[in-house]
Amino acid sequence: MILVKVYVMLKDSVVDVQGEAIKDATHTMSYENVSEVRMGKYFEIKFDNNSNDLEKDVDEICDGLLANPNIESYRYEIVGDIQ
Amino acid sequence: MILVKVYVMLKDSVVDVQGEAIKDATHTMSYENVSEVRMGKYFEIKFDNNSNDLEKDVDEICDGLLANPNIESYRYEIVGDIQ
Repeated sequence: MILVKVYVMLKDSVVDVQGEAIKDATHTMSYENVSEVRMGKYFEIKFDNNSNDLEKDVDEICDGLLANPNIESYRYEIVGDIQ
Repeated sequence: MILVKVYVMLKDSVVDVQGEAIKDATHTMSYENVSEVRMGKYFEIKFDNNSNDLEKDVDEICDGLLANPNIESYRYEIVGDIQ
């Protein structure tokens, strides 16, 4: 079994309104030393077995399903065989 | 500047409906070898300077703001000094 961890974040050019709101809330909680919060999505995908071209498959799943390529970017780690 | 990466996931005992829907969609895209998808939230928090007890601060921010402790669990990595 292969585990792939996918991180989807808004592109730097897009204002992260949720992250800004969370930063403001941390200040209200008196954590004034929080200078930036960015919020994204995180996915753990398990594959039953290695495909011939796992990276191509993950790219297609990310582009077609998990990320909006207009405003989001993604990266992933292939963790390898897990039980 | 300290970067903290926070991962918030539904507890294993809670059905991850979004993850299930994404898994079904990957099958429709003919990636039949996807056996499980779990979806969570990911946060990058930057602290201006190290607090006296950074881990306690991050725990309080997670418990009070980022995660719903009834149904979600979180973990985090303190990445250390970044520019």
